[in-house]
Amino acid sequence: MADSSPDTSKPLRSGAEYIASLRGRRLSVFLMGERIEEPVDHPIIRPSVNAMAATYDAGPADADLAGAESSLTGERVNRFLHVTDSPADLVAQGRMQRRLGQVTGTCFQRCVGMDAINALFSLTFDVDAARGTAYHRRFLQWLTGVQRANLVVGGAMTDVKGDRSRGPGQQADPDLFVRVVDRRPGGLVIRGAKAHQTGAINSHWLLVMPGQRLTPEEQDYAVACAVPVTAAGITFVYGRQSSDTRSVEGDLDVGNARFAGQEALVLFDDVFVPDEHVFLDGEAEFAAELVERFTAYHRRSYVCKAGVGDVLIGAAALVAEYNGVPRASHIRDKLVEMIHLNETIYAAGIAASHEGHRTSAGNWEPDRLLANVCKQSVTRFPYEMARLAQDLAGGAVVTLPGEADLRHPEIGPQLDKYLRGRADVPTEHRWRALRLVENLTLGRNAVGYLAESLHGAGSPQAQRVVIQRQVDLEGRKAMARRLAGIPPEGAAG
Amino acid sequence: MADSSPDTSKPLRSGAEYIASLRGRRLSVFLMGERIEEPVDHPIIRPSVNAMAATYDAGPADADLAGAESSLTGERVNRFLHVTDSPADLVAQGRMQRRLGQVTGTCFQRCVGMDAINALFSLTFDVDAARGTAYHRRFLQWLTGVQRANLVVGGAMTDVKGDRSRGPGQQADPDLFVRVVDRRPGGLVIRGAKAHQTGAINSHWLLVMPGQRLTPEEQDYAVACAVPVTAAGITFVYGRQSSDTRSVEGDLDVGNARFAGQEALVLFDDVFVPDEHVFLDGEAEFAAELVERFTAYHRRSYVCKAGVGDVLIGAAALVAEYNGVPRASHIRDKLVEMIHLNETIYAAGIAASHEGHRTSAGNWEPDRLLANVCKQSVTRFPYEMARLAQDLAGGAVVTLPGEADLRHPEIGPQLDKYLRGRADVPTEHRWRALRLVENLTLGRNAVGYLAESLHGAGSPQAQRVVIQRQVDLEGRKAMARRLAGIPPEGAAG
Amino acid sequence: MADSSPDTSKPLRSGAEYIASLRGRRLSVFLMGERIEEPVDHPIIRPSVNAMAATYDAGPADADLAGAESSLTGERVNRFLHVTDSPADLVAQGRMQRRLGQVTGTCFQRCVGMDAINALFSLTFDVDAARGTAYHRRFLQWLTGVQRANLVVGGAMTDVKGDRSRGPGQQADPDLFVRVVDRRPGGLVIRGAKAHQTGAINSHWLLVMPGQRLTPEEQDYAVACAVPVTAAGITFVYGRQSSDTRSVEGDLDVGNARFAGQEALVLFDDVFVPDEHVFLDGEAEFAAELVERFTAYHRRSYVCKAGVGDVLIGAAALVAEYNGVPRASHIRDKLVEMIHLNETIYAAGIAASHEGHRTSAGNWEPDRLLANVCKQSVTRFPYEMARLAQDLAGGAVVTLPGEADLRHPEIGPQLDKYLRGRADVPTEHRWRALRLVENLTLGRNAVGYLAESLHGAGSPQAQRVVIQRQVDLEGRKAMARRLAGIPPEGAAG
Amino acid sequence: MADSSPDTSKPLRSGAEYIASLRGRRLSVFLMGERIEEPVDHPIIRPSVNAMAATYDAGPADADLAGAESSLTGERVNRFLHVTDSPADLVAQGRMQRRLGQVTGTCFQRCVGMDAINALFSLTFDVDAARGTAYHRRFLQWLTGVQRANLVVGGAMTDVKGDRSRGPGQQADPDLFVRVVDRRPGGLVIRGAKAHQTGAINSHWLLVMPGQRLTPEEQDYAVACAVPVTAAGITFVYGRQSSDTRSVEGDLDVGNARFAGQEALVLFDDVFVPDEHVFLDGEAEFAAELVERFTAYHRRSYVCKAGVGDVLIGAAALVAEYNGVPRASHIRDKLVEMIHLNETIYAAGIAASHEGHRTSAGNWEPDRLLANVCKQSVTRFPYEMARLAQDLAGGAVVTLPGEADLRHPEIGPQLDKYLRGRADVPTEHRWRALRLVENLTLGRNAVGYLAESLHGAGSPQAQRVVIQRQVDLEGRKAMARRLAGIPPEGAAG
Repeated sequence: MADSSPDTSKPLRSGAEYIASLRGRRLSVFLMGERIEEPVDHPIIRPSVNAMAATYDAGPADADLAGAESSLTGERVNRFLHVTDSPADLVAQGRMQRRLGQVTGTCFQRCVGMDAINALFSLTFDVDAARGTAYHRRFLQWLTGVQRANLVVGGAMTDVKGDRSRGPGQQADPDLFVRVVDRRPGGLVIRGAKAHQTGAINSHWLLVMPGQRLTPEEQDYAVACAVPVTAAGITFVYGRQSSDTRSVEGDLDVGNARFAGQEALVLFDDVFVPDEHVFLDGEAEFAAELVERFTAYHRRSYVCKAGVGDVLIGAAALVAEYNGVPRASHIRDKLVEMIHLNETIYAAGIAASHEGHRTSAGNWEPDRLLANVCKQSVTRFPYEMARLAQDLAGGAVVTLPGEADLRHPEIGPQLDKYLRGRADVPTEHRWRALRLVENLTLGRNAVGYLAESLHGAGSPQAQRVVIQRQVDLEGRKAMARRLAGIPPEGAAG
Repeated sequence: MADSSPDTSKPLRSGAEYIASLRGRRLSVFLMGERIEEPVDHPIIRPSVNAMAATYDAGPADADLAGAESSLTGERVNRFLHVTDSPADLVAQGRMQRRLGQVTGTCFQRCVGMDAINALFSLTFDVDAARGTAYHRRFLQWLTGVQRANLVVGGAMTDVKGDRSRGPGQQADPDLFVRVVDRRPGGLVIRGAKAHQTGAINSHWLLVMPGQRLTPEEQDYAVACAVPVTAAGITFVYGRQSSDTRSVEGDLDVGNARFAGQEALVLFDDVFVPDEHVFLDGEAEFAAELVERFTAYHRRSYVCKAGVGDVLIGAAALVAEYNGVPRASHIRDKLVEMIHLNETIYAAGIAASHEGHRTSAGNWEPDRLLANVCKQSVTRFPYEMARLAQDLAGGAVVTLPGEADLRHPEIGPQLDKYLRGRADVPTEHRWRALRLVENLTLGRNAVGYLAESLHGAGSPQAQRVVIQRQVDLEGRKAMARRLAGIPPEGAAG
Repeated sequence: MADSSPDTSKPLRSGAEYIASLRGRRLSVFLMGERIEEPVDHPIIRPSVNAMAATYDAGPADADLAGAESSLTGERVNRFLHVTDSPADLVAQGRMQRRLGQVTGTCFQRCVGMDAINALFSLTFDVDAARGTAYHRRFLQWLTGVQRANLVVGGAMTDVKGDRSRGPGQQADPDLFVRVVDRRPGGLVIRGAKAHQTGAINSHWLLVMPGQRLTPEEQDYAVACAVPVTAAGITFVYGRQSSDTRSVEGDLDVGNARFAGQEALVLFDDVFVPDEHVFLDGEAEFAAELVERFTAYHRRSYVCKAGVGDVLIGAAALVAEYNGVPRASHIRDKLVEMIHLNETIYAAGIAASHEGHRTSAGNWEPDRLLANVCKQSVTRFPYEMARLAQDLAGGAVVTLPGEADLRHPEIGPQLDKYLRGRADVPTEHRWRALRLVENLTLGRNAVGYLAESLHGAGSPQAQRVVIQRQVDLEGRKAMARRLAGIPPEGAAG
Repeated sequence: MADSSPDTSKPLRSGAEYIASLRGRRLSVFLMGERIEEPVDHPIIRPSVNAMAATYDAGPADADLAGAESSLTGERVNRFLHVTDSPADLVAQGRMQRRLGQVTGTCFQRCVGMDAINALFSLTFDVDAARGTAYHRRFLQWLTGVQRANLVVGGAMTDVKGDRSRGPGQQADPDLFVRVVDRRPGGLVIRGAKAHQTGAINSHWLLVMPGQRLTPEEQDYAVACAVPVTAAGITFVYGRQSSDTRSVEGDLDVGNARFAGQEALVLFDDVFVPDEHVFLDGEAEFAAELVERFTAYHRRSYVCKAGVGDVLIGAAALVAEYNGVPRASHIRDKLVEMIHLNETIYAAGIAASHEGHRTSAGNWEPDRLLANVCKQSVTRFPYEMARLAQDLAGGAVVTLPGEADLRHPEIGPQLDKYLRGRADVPTEHRWRALRLVENLTLGRNAVGYLAESLHGAGSPQAQRVVIQRQVDLEGRKAMARRLAGIPPEGAAG
């Protein structure tokens, strides 16, 4: 086991060091039917590595945002690994997330771990209190090492789920939710698969967690643990993304050549997890609370999309400018609408952080209702913003020729002549702005900006269920009764 | 002059004392063609007095929300008169506003003054700094008295405006914007009219302010001052509200018999204002900033509508319960949608407060972009919530007979029999809940919940203009350029 | 019985004759706790009579729209009583409805009967074919008389329903759905109440019909019959409408002084119905089909709201013009949005008519899917249009003083001065346009334009249920399978 | 000239014959920097050829829909080449378009020509009448040959436009709108480029038309003519589409392997057009009317998207079924919402056809207002439907591995195990349904379903301008005035 764990001897201090740390890990990674020996160097994968690396390089630009003083170690740690000590810490997370969305124009993949760390911090505390277990101490020990080495922690919550009308214990194939298949001295063995795992291949550790409420009979599915990505038995299958192979072709047609997201299917084929990395094992009654706690952090983390939205607003404004009509009233109005929607997302996310509360374990958790309200808006507004951006950009978003045409000696000059907008703006600039709009609304980063906004941290219906549960509907009914002159519940009618 | 100023000898400590303070003032008030000798006792006006009184009675329930320690006097003052000392003060305003919305189910009218006080606090400071005037000191002196006496301060910003395609100086009638028509030793004389003045008749003081950007030629319109409502030359004309006369008929048909809002047209027929109450006179270049500063506070103050929204959600949920179908999936889903929209408003408002900044004068101002984003959502979501509430409530909202029918010896028992929902809920309870939905969506308090949400603190387009101005569009374009591979502006193309 | 039936000796040929026909009927009508001896002369009721009368006066203006040649009698009859002979007849209904919406600015109440006639025409035919009954002949006989006399036929479908989680047979009180309580030689006796009955008091006949699917055990609730409004045992209770009493006060504050809708609760206290007026009695299995057939007509009839929408668009445009800003880009854009929404409603309604099909009985029925799609949009777009109209109109919609203020010798001239918009437009014109916007969005006709759009012909969820049932989802899945390369259902996987 | 014109010796009778007719034409086509010798055989281009071919094969399935009797020749012709003789012809176009959308799941590209034919039919008639020209006869002669040979006619209207704030005559480069650069005996020479030309390479003829209102000085831009795609001087540059190269990789990852749309940039490098193919030359005052007439047809032609929407609804329903949850209430409700939106589009389009009017030339034109209303909804609803489809489909839409992974001997079986939904549905079926959702919402056919819905036939603002112009706003104001009691315009105030 020890050999597979990431090196913690010296902390990673930059994106470059981080990228170096990914090399030579001999992960089992499949992409389009091929084993990828060195993911870092694969042109389709590399942009996702770059995006994660940006979380290491954010520090110099804004140290307060990027780092914090750990209450575990007293040392300065990357904010993505920090246990929140105050509402200000929650707020700083949100600001950092928006900033990184602006810098990368995509999903930089490090939030799942951040949010899982904070959820497990308090949950292990509560489980220990209720059941006399020792998960919290174990968790702190593991986390201390991770903080010191400044590693990337990915989450692994969403099971593949099979027949959605049945729970883990009712599936034809019991492996369709990750579960403990064996318990040995010193550890346990898990099997199953987690789908849509953001940045998994770019991580050092995965935090495996159950993804839903469990019955007492489903206790084998109640397992949370840390697993190094290099552990024996783990296989990653890279998810295809819209226009993903353009990353191989060149840079112009991609739209955002440097950065992209990453989603992988992670297979756990009887992976051994030593006890010291197990943070929940069989306490099925805590599964739902773990999910709700994690999503309280994670649904608010979608303020990052406001950062990506900023890029889309900028790109749409650029095209309008290059087309010569930045001041047409309907164009200005559509930009304002995009900004309004984008800031509405940000407002809800940052409000959820400001209005956070202290857990019994001592860290801070966002307001659950507002966090879910934030995410619910995220499932809608980026789609409307994408539509508005395509409206502003015009049909060329989907009809522009390829980069090779523009570079072609014969047809290239013709394209340069005919696809120009304002005479004083190089055609290629307009072209690049258009491709960025395509990238975010139909192309590779539409995965992160749209579909992930919809389904990440739980699909829309999941938020509605929590909103219903979190809101004090009885209190509101009492307000209405009082004003309407209806006696209080329980009073004589 | 002195005789017309409100009594400041002892502070008002309760709603009852407040109401007493309104009596015998001999205001010139018209309502439906009649002079109203004692507004407090008029059945149409009284509910609006009650709503304002609730701001006096909020203290006992929640002292921290209702009051604050004034940095002017060191004394405990009503929060509606408090100069914000911190982001926490801004946030407390928002919480108090939502709470009072829940308590009254309508517009409680005291926010305009609160927001005008904070805007003038910093603006007078800045004008003095720029122009060597002494407005700030004057203003503090006036405010200190108001805080000590715990008086109601109304605003008076929105001019009647005449031809909207022309500015104040271009109107056929120069009086269509309030202006200084004379300057005498010791003071000045103003003329004009302010429309849609919330709670004006229930106030002790009015803070007159210009309502828009002014040209240098329009300096006579650049006047801000405090005027007691009792000043000679002031006339109030009460605005009609939907179903307003039901307040005269009884209580059941009103829906919310105790509370309502108040909008009045205020005519200033050559009103003298002594110098010590003049806080801007001729500094036309500050008019736009005063409006923008006031609206930064006031557009965020519309979180109060989330409180009213809570009542509407409660009323709709009550009807669903009384109809026997609170758990039908489409009904639950519509309630969730209402809650989602309502909390989205709250989130933006509270975020604008949390993200406030300190002014040069030392008080705190909300984030302008988020405040406008909040208000923009307020111009939309309550309408959608009203539609959903009517959907949940059913057609009876607009077809229920009158209270007198229910009380009628012959037809009453028939109505009791046939208009019952769930057998164990008295018909009148269902009736009352339905009438409350009507009150908020079509009736008297729809004025405050819908139309005021649309136009209060500036109509939707006003927010869009500010959003456009507040947002850093160039910064967003730069982000897009960087990711698209377009050289920075100014670099060689 | 005969004495209570409407006079059919000579046809009603004008609105005036129609109004005369309503006099002296000694109906049992309650309004606000009083028995109304002569509804026609009651100031609150009269505007609804005027609206119905407009259906009589439409002829001279457009004979083709207003009338048709009856295939029953070969005579020219009012289109509201005509059995549809072609798609063109269905389309003509829609055009007539929009036109009358434009003429009255409210609900003119005569569509329910028109749609019920057409639904019963084919349903009685089908019941006879299936069950050997003789309802169709009876129905034709009755209808022939009604056509000849040009009478108003109201519907009576929506039961009061009690506990919505229970069917007619499961209520604590069996009378909460109209049912047969006795069968005597020559007829039957019904008891119960129908809610929200549009124009009932202005009708000559009511067509009582069941309002929902019934079980075999609920056959006593499966009754359809024609009842004269003058029948012994019927009582009407007039529904209160927003600002209804303004109709008593004068004309300016009403907004639309001449026309209004009418909704009444109709109580059937053991009303005897002779056999020749019974068109369904006990055939419970046809109840659902009757409802679906009726709503196929009636949900498409809501194109009338496009006519009311035209008035609202005109009113909003007028205010913009009177305010001096009809050409501001955001104002034009909002008018365009209103028009777009309004025409979308009309398009769906008229398409449902054009795409109608012939029934086995020989008359024409609208396309059910499109009819429900039309109504579903009607439950949404008028609300958005109302919001936009209030936006365009400005806050004065809800803060204007009363007519008596404007007429007051002292304050009137001040209001005339200060509430003027463009200098060349009389203040009262602007005032009237504003009051019309209020009338349609918050006032008396908001009942017809908004709440009735939501709940009339079935609440939104009712349309969704039909849409789901009408659409060929399996066919669409087959299309998807073919394109995706999935073998057809049933083929080897 | 003659040598470049398409063969008209025998009509094309099937998709196969059509495809054969495309071979060996030696067009100048660029795709991704390469000259494509035989577009028909290029894997990226072929799916678009197949879609066009479907318009030839539709006949056997539904002869009435696919063909019509030409009033020019009295012969049976393909409906895409038919001059509309009745409203029924317009309606049949719409039904055919929806059907082909269902069959291909994409843009089948043949509508532009159909709509251009009908617009030019009446416009040439009117120009001749006004100016004494002979365009109409020429046009009929050309059209007769095209009908007989059953050829594909593409349009060429949208210029590349350069600086959008300037008209054709004000551009820095005069070639940014197509124009006549030379007039020679027997013909004229055109230069310029047309962007986003749907199906251009799959056409036999292009109908070049001006794309906007022109000033008298811009008469060289007022040119309409028919040009064979094989004419000397024409170059096509194929537009890139999202995920276009997946068509080269295999079939599973494409989602819809057989069909796709086609958009090309068409360069006219001094192309000679003989007089007999010139249908407008210099009559600049007719340019705007030609555009408005063409778009009256073409904006209503977007009912084809309702056919594509049917496929998307089917695909989403399939995934829900394969996931085991087709009956969950929120899933059913989202399907109903998709259906509602889809049918709303169809209703407006088909209504515009039903409500068409006869032109002075004798053919039938759709209602302009409703046609624009249809298209305006098309710019919105497919985006919302795409969002709902992604919601229903789940995150796998964007995280599924590639086909090669599924076929891989090692990882394939694992994927088959873990990506299964309902146990009795083969994993690959679910996979295919998911890929079809991706294809339509983010992939290759999202170009046709989303961006083309937005910009095809004119961007959203273009429709709003026409809506504003088409609507009788003065009539609506008069309705409002009458009801509000305001004297008619012109009457004494």
